[in-house]
Amino acid sequence: MGLTETVSFLLLVWFLSSSHILGALAERSIHIVHIDKSLMPKVFASHIYWYTSMIDSIGNVGQTSDHGLAPKILYTYDAAFHGFSALMSKDHLQALKKSPGFVSAHPDRSPTIDTTHTPDFLSLNTATGLWPASDYGKDVIIGVVDDGIWPENPSFKDDGMTPIPPRWKGSCQEGQEFNSSLCNLKLIGAKYFNKAVLAANPNLNLSMNSARATSGHGTHVAGTAAGNYVEGVSFFGYGSGTARGIAPRARLAAYKVLWDEGSFEADVLAGIDQAVADGVDVISISLGFDFTPPYEEPISIASFGAMEKGIFVSTSAGNKGPDLGTVHNDIPWALTVAAGSVDRKFSGSLVLGNGLTIIGWSMFPARALVKDLPIIYNQTISACDSTESLLTVTDIGRSVVICDETVPFREQIRHVYEANARAGIFVSEEPAIFRSNFFPHPGVVISRQDAAKVIRYASKGSSPTATIKFQQTFVGTKPAPVVSASSSRGPSQGFPGILKPDIMAPGVLILAAYYPDSFEASIGSSILLSTDFTAISGTSMSCPHASGIAALLKGAHPEWSPAAVRSAMMTTATTLDNTRSPIKDTGRDNEVATPLAIGAGHVDPNRALDPGLIYDATPQDYINFICSMNFTRMQTLAITRSTSYNCSNPSSDLNYPSFVALYETSDQTKSKLVKKFRRTLTNVGNGAATYTAKVTAPKGSAVTISPKTIKFGKKYEKQSYSLTISYNGNENQIVSSGSVTWIEDDGNHVVTSPIVISPRVERS
Amino acid sequence: MGLTETVSFLLLVWFLSSSHILGALAERSIHIVHIDKSLMPKVFASHIYWYTSMIDSIGNVGQTSDHGLAPKILYTYDAAFHGFSALMSKDHLQALKKSPGFVSAHPDRSPTIDTTHTPDFLSLNTATGLWPASDYGKDVIIGVVDDGIWPENPSFKDDGMTPIPPRWKGSCQEGQEFNSSLCNLKLIGAKYFNKAVLAANPNLNLSMNSARATSGHGTHVAGTAAGNYVEGVSFFGYGSGTARGIAPRARLAAYKVLWDEGSFEADVLAGIDQAVADGVDVISISLGFDFTPPYEEPISIASFGAMEKGIFVSTSAGNKGPDLGTVHNDIPWALTVAAGSVDRKFSGSLVLGNGLTIIGWSMFPARALVKDLPIIYNQTISACDSTESLLTVTDIGRSVVICDETVPFREQIRHVYEANARAGIFVSEEPAIFRSNFFPHPGVVISRQDAAKVIRYASKGSSPTATIKFQQTFVGTKPAPVVSASSSRGPSQGFPGILKPDIMAPGVLILAAYYPDSFEASIGSSILLSTDFTAISGTSMSCPHASGIAALLKGAHPEWSPAAVRSAMMTTATTLDNTRSPIKDTGRDNEVATPLAIGAGHVDPNRALDPGLIYDATPQDYINFICSMNFTRMQTLAITRSTSYNCSNPSSDLNYPSFVALYETSDQTKSKLVKKFRRTLTNVGNGAATYTAKVTAPKGSAVTISPKTIKFGKKYEKQSYSLTISYNGNENQIVSSGSVTWIEDDGNHVVTSPIVISPRVERS
Repeated sequence: MGLTETVSFLLLVWFLSSSHILGALAERSIHIVHIDKSLMPKVFASHIYWYTSMIDSIGNVGQTSDHGLAPKILYTYDAAFHGFSALMSKDHLQALKKSPGFVSAHPDRSPTIDTTHTPDFLSLNTATGLWPASDYGKDVIIGVVDDGIWPENPSFKDDGMTPIPPRWKGSCQEGQEFNSSLCNLKLIGAKYFNKAVLAANPNLNLSMNSARATSGHGTHVAGTAAGNYVEGVSFFGYGSGTARGIAPRARLAAYKVLWDEGSFEADVLAGIDQAVADGVDVISISLGFDFTPPYEEPISIASFGAMEKGIFVSTSAGNKGPDLGTVHNDIPWALTVAAGSVDRKFSGSLVLGNGLTIIGWSMFPARALVKDLPIIYNQTISACDSTESLLTVTDIGRSVVICDETVPFREQIRHVYEANARAGIFVSEEPAIFRSNFFPHPGVVISRQDAAKVIRYASKGSSPTATIKFQQTFVGTKPAPVVSASSSRGPSQGFPGILKPDIMAPGVLILAAYYPDSFEASIGSSILLSTDFTAISGTSMSCPHASGIAALLKGAHPEWSPAAVRSAMMTTATTLDNTRSPIKDTGRDNEVATPLAIGAGHVDPNRALDPGLIYDATPQDYINFICSMNFTRMQTLAITRSTSYNCSNPSSDLNYPSFVALYETSDQTKSKLVKKFRRTLTNVGNGAATYTAKVTAPKGSAVTISPKTIKFGKKYEKQSYSLTISYNGNENQIVSSGSVTWIEDDGNHVVTSPIVISPRVERS
Repeated sequence: MGLTETVSFLLLVWFLSSSHILGALAERSIHIVHIDKSLMPKVFASHIYWYTSMIDSIGNVGQTSDHGLAPKILYTYDAAFHGFSALMSKDHLQALKKSPGFVSAHPDRSPTIDTTHTPDFLSLNTATGLWPASDYGKDVIIGVVDDGIWPENPSFKDDGMTPIPPRWKGSCQEGQEFNSSLCNLKLIGAKYFNKAVLAANPNLNLSMNSARATSGHGTHVAGTAAGNYVEGVSFFGYGSGTARGIAPRARLAAYKVLWDEGSFEADVLAGIDQAVADGVDVISISLGFDFTPPYEEPISIASFGAMEKGIFVSTSAGNKGPDLGTVHNDIPWALTVAAGSVDRKFSGSLVLGNGLTIIGWSMFPARALVKDLPIIYNQTISACDSTESLLTVTDIGRSVVICDETVPFREQIRHVYEANARAGIFVSEEPAIFRSNFFPHPGVVISRQDAAKVIRYASKGSSPTATIKFQQTFVGTKPAPVVSASSSRGPSQGFPGILKPDIMAPGVLILAAYYPDSFEASIGSSILLSTDFTAISGTSMSCPHASGIAALLKGAHPEWSPAAVRSAMMTTATTLDNTRSPIKDTGRDNEVATPLAIGAGHVDPNRALDPGLIYDATPQDYINFICSMNFTRMQTLAITRSTSYNCSNPSSDLNYPSFVALYETSDQTKSKLVKKFRRTLTNVGNGAATYTAKVTAPKGSAVTISPKTIKFGKKYEKQSYSLTISYNGNENQIVSSGSVTWIEDDGNHVVTSPIVISPRVERS
C-alpha cells in the first residue's frame, strides 16, 4: 500500500466514525420541556424526582439498544419556570407528550448577543437625585446572564463595599481557573451552565470550563451595570477618566451561559433560573432570540417567573435596526432597551497650516505624532482606492493624504497604511464609523462641510501642512443622544399590542471592563492590541445602563414592583436631545425618532426617582393579558407554568405606560382604525394630587381621553382613565407618534406616555 | 531672456548675496572675552558701561565702512564670571587685547548635550533619611541650564508648594508662547539666551523665541531633579507609577541656552551667569564642551563663580564612553556625574506552549495581543536578515518568528515588521538595546541562555506556540546598578590630578517629563508616537539625579559649602551593586567598574545626609590648586576672574575626596611612580569622634597613610592626614583601584575615598 492509499484509507475510517457520531447526535437533540408542576403527584419529594421518572419512563422508547442514546436530563428548572431540558430523540419526545403534566416542548435554539462617561451624561451625581437616594445601589444584587466574567478586572474589586446581606443564596462555583477566592463583596456569585453545549458536542473540551470569560461581553455588561470605581481608565487614551458602573455600590453575580463553542437555550434558561433561585433583584440580559414565538422564547418564559418574584428583568432590544419589526426581547413583563449615542466624541483635531482647526473623528489607538507635515490632495490619488496610486506620492511616508468620500473608509484606511502614508484625512458621514473603534492608522474622519475647507486649503497655496492631535475626547457634543442606526426597532412581533422597545439608554462606544486577551484595536494589519477596558456599541451596552438604573430605583424604592420601576423609567424619559430638539434617528436620515426606535424616550434616572404616578401591573394582570392572546392553552401554560392560572378575565389592555396601534398595510381601503385603551394610574407622590391630561395626537389621528382631570386623595390611590385613538391616515408605511402627559397641577410631576401608530410589520 | 537663463541669473544674484553675508559673518565671529573687573576705572558706573566703551573704542578698527561690521556686544557677564561676549573681527580682537583689564578671549564653541522609579531605587522614602530631613528640598532652588522647558507638563504644577522666598531675584521672561502666567510656585523662573545664535545667523527666525522648549531634554532634566508628583505616568505602559523628581518640593528655574538652530558658548555662559545672579542654590548642567582647555571651557569658568557664591554645580560626565579619557565637565569645583542602570526591566514575558516563561526585554509601545500563536524557527529565515525570506513563511501574519543572533537587532526587527510577522523573538545581549526605547514591532529580546531553551522547544514537537505579554515592568532586577557603556570615563584631561567622574547616578531609561510633540517611539516605520513622559538614557539623566540630591542636602544642611555637599555624596557612595558584589561595567565586558567609570561609586542619598567627615574646600583652596597648574597668568585669570587672587600658596593637593595617580604610558622603564597627597577632614558628626583608616591598595601598589587614627574633639574640628601611593605595576594600560576608608570607632560613620592608578590618556 503506497502512501496515497494509506491516507485515503485513514480518511475513510475517520469519515465513517464521524458520520456515526453525527448520526447519533442527530437522532437525539436538546429540547426544552415545560411541565405543569401543580400536577406533580405527591409521591415525589421534589420536581427533580418527578422529571427524572418521566425521562426514565420513556427511556426504552424506539430501537435504542445503545445506552448512549437514552434520553438524558440536562437541567431541571424551578425558579423562573417549571420544567427541564433534555437530550432526546423525536420518539422520546412523542412519548413524553403523553406524560401527565407535560405542557410543551421545543428544540433548543441559539441566542444572538447583542462606561464610562455615561453616569455624567445621565446626570447622575453625588449631590442630589438617584445616586444618593439609592445609596448608589447598595445591597441591590444584579445578576448578569452572559458569557462569564473576568473577575480580576479592577471594576470588580470590592473597595468600599459592605458585607453581603444574609438573604443571598448564590455562591461562587468552582471551575477551571476559577475558585471562590475570586468572589468578594462586589462579585458575590459566579456560576456556569454548560450541560447543553456539552450534550450537543459530547467530545468537546470547553476552552474555559468555568464562569471565567474567554471574551469580554459579559464582563463589559457587568462593569457597565455595577462596576466599582477605577481611576485612570481609557480606551487607548480616549475617554480617559474614572470608570464606574451606573450602580457603583450594587453587587454582581455572573451566570455564564454563552460559550465560545456554541450557545444553547437550555443553558440560558438554566442561568436565569439560577439567578432567580439565588435571589438577585435585577437580571440583566444582553442577548436575545430573534423571531421566536413568545411561548417558546426562553427569556420571555424565564423572565415571567422572575417578574412573579418581584425581580426586574432588563433586556437588550437587539442590533438589527434600522428596519422596523426587528426588536427582540419584546416581553411585556421585562424592559426592552434601545441604544442611543452619548455626548462624547473621540477625536483627532486637525490643524491646518493656515490655523484652521477641525475637530474630526479618530480612534487611532496611540498618540501618533503628525505635526506640520505636507498635506496632499490630488485627483490621481485622493480616491484612496489603491495602494499603488498612493505610493506614487513623493515622500508618502511624511505626507498626510486627503481621501475623498468615494470607497468606504475601511478600504481607504487600509490603502493608506499599506502605502505607509503618515496619516489620512477621510471624508465620511457614515454613522457606522462613529460607533466602531476600528481605526488602524493615524488619521481623522471629517464631515463633508469641513472637507470642503480642507480641500480648498490643500489645493491652492504653497506647501500646505497639517497637524493632527490624537487621543482627544470632547464631551458635551451635540446633538446627543441620537438613536444608533443598528438599534432594533418596533413594532413587537410577539406582542403587537405592546409598544417595544420601552426606552433608550446609552449604547454607543461605551467604555467598560473587558476580557484582557481579546483584540480590541489594531495598528495596520499585523499589530493587534488588547486592553482591560474597551469602548463598544450596541443594545448589549444600553441594557446594563437600564439594569443599573433599575437597581438604583430598587434601592430607593424597595417596595416597587418590576412594573412600577419600569413605569417610573418610562414616564419620566425624555424625547428631547441636548439641543432641546426631538431626538433624531441616525438610522433614518436623522429624522425625528419615533417610539418604535426609542420607546418612551431616553432614560432620565433622577426624574425616575420621583415619577408622581405609575402604571403598575401584577402577575395576574400579565396573565389576563396573556389570556387575551390567541395562544393555545399549552402555549399559555408555557409562560404561566401552572394550570392554576386564572384566565377568567382576559384583557388585551395591559396597564402599560405606552400606547401602540397598528394598521394593516394590506388593507387597501385604509378604513378608520379605532383603538381603545384603559389604564390605571397609582399615585406614588406624597399625598393628594390633581393631574390634568395633555394630549398630542399622532399625525392623522384624533386621541380622546376620559376623564381629562384626575384627583388623587392620598398616596397609593388608584384612578383609571380611557384613551381612544381614531386613525384615518391614508398614507401607507407611515409611522406617526404623539403622547399623553398627565401634569400635576403644581407642575411637580409630569407623567408622559408615548402613543404610536404604525403599520403592522411581519418578520420571521 | 528664456526661463533657464532667468533662473541662472537669479541663482547668481543669490550666490553673490549669500557670499557677501557669509563673508561678513566669517569676518566677525563670536568671542568670549574675560575681563579683570577689579581694574575697572571708577568713572564707569557699572561694568556694562566699561565693556561698552571698550567695544566702542575698537569699533573703527580695520576697513569697516559698513556699520554692520562694527563689533557688537552680545552679553555682559558679571555673576558667574566677569566679561562679555561679542561679535567681532580678528582686527577687533587684536585691538581689544590692548585694552586695560583684558584677560583672555577665545572663539565661541558649541556644546554637546548629553523617572521615575529612581527615588525608590535610591532608597529615598517618606519615613526616614534625606527626604524628611530636607523637607523634600523645600525652598531649595535648582537652576536648569538647558534647552528650555515645557511648562504645561504636570511635573511643573505647584500643588503642595509654599510661597517663594523673598531672596529669589529671578523671573519669568516674556517671549514667544511664553508669559509669566506659566510660572508658578514650582517653576519660579524661565529665561532665554539667544544673542549668540542670532548673531551667528542674522536672518534667522528662531522656531521658538522664548524659554519654551522645542525638544524635551531640559524638560526631562528639570522633571528628574525636582518634578512634582504626577500619578499615572508611564512610557507607553512601561514603568507605570507616580513620577516625581528627586527633590519633589524643590523649585525650578529654567535657563534656555540651547537652540534647535545652533548652540553657542556665549548663550550657555549667559544662562549660567543669570542663574547665579538670580540666586539659585544648585545649577544642573546636562551639557558639556568636549576637549576644551579648562581656562576656555565656559562651564568650568562660570561654575567657578557659582562655587564662590556657595552654589552647587552638578554636571554630566558625557556619553563618549567606554573609552578612557572621554569625561567632560571634569571641573574640580563642580560635580561630574556618570550614568548607571536602574534595577528596573521593561519587559515582554514570553510564555511557550510548554509552560516555560521567559522574562525578556521589550519596549514595544502598546499592548500587543500575541497569544498562543505558532512559533517559527528554521535556518532559512531565522537570520531575519531579509524581508523576502520571512515572507516565505506560510501565514507569517499569525506567526512569531525566532531571530538568531546574527545581524543587529535594529535590522532584524525592521525585516520582521516589513514582513508583517505577528511578533519576533530576538536573541541579543548587546547593552545598547537595553538603554534605548527603540522597539517598533511586537517582540521580545532574550538572552543566549534563554534562546537555547526556546529554540529547542520550537525545533521539536508539534505545533509549538508562544504568548508574549507586553507593558510589563519588573523592579529589583539584578545586578543593578551597572555602568552604562556610553558613560564617559576618566581620567580627566583638563585636570589630571583630579579623579573624574566623581560619582555615578541613575541614567538608563529614566522616565520623566518631556516635550509633548517629539517622536519618542515608533510602530513600524510610518507611525511615530509622542508622549508627555519619556524614558531616555545618558549622563544628562544621571546629572539631575545628583542635582536633586544636592538640593536635598542643601535643604538639610544649608551651612554646607558646595565642596562639603560633594564630599558627603562621594564618601558615602557605594561601590557594591544590589547583589553585594562590586558594580560591573557593561562597557568593559561586565568587569568590575573602576573609579574612572564610577568615581566614588553609586550615590546613596540617605547616607550622604550624615557622612561623619567631609573633605571641605574654600574658594581659596581652588585658587591655590589652579595656581599649581601650568597655566599662564591670563589663563588663570580666565577662571579666577580677578587679579586680586592670591597665588602665594599654589598646591596641587586640592582637598578632594578621591585620589588619582597617572603613569606615563610612554615611559618604557615603568619606573616606580610615587605620589603623595595631603588631605584635611572636617568632623561634621555630632561631637567627639575617633576614626581609623582602612586602606585597600590598588593592585601593583603600596599605599601608606599617616596618621592611621585621627581623634576629633568636637564638631567642625579639622584634622589632616597624608597618603602616599607607590606604584610599580609593570603592565601597560592597566587601571587598578583601591580605597581609603576612615571608620569611626563606634562604626557609626564610614568615610570612603577611591584610589585609582591609571595610564595617562591623551585625547583631543
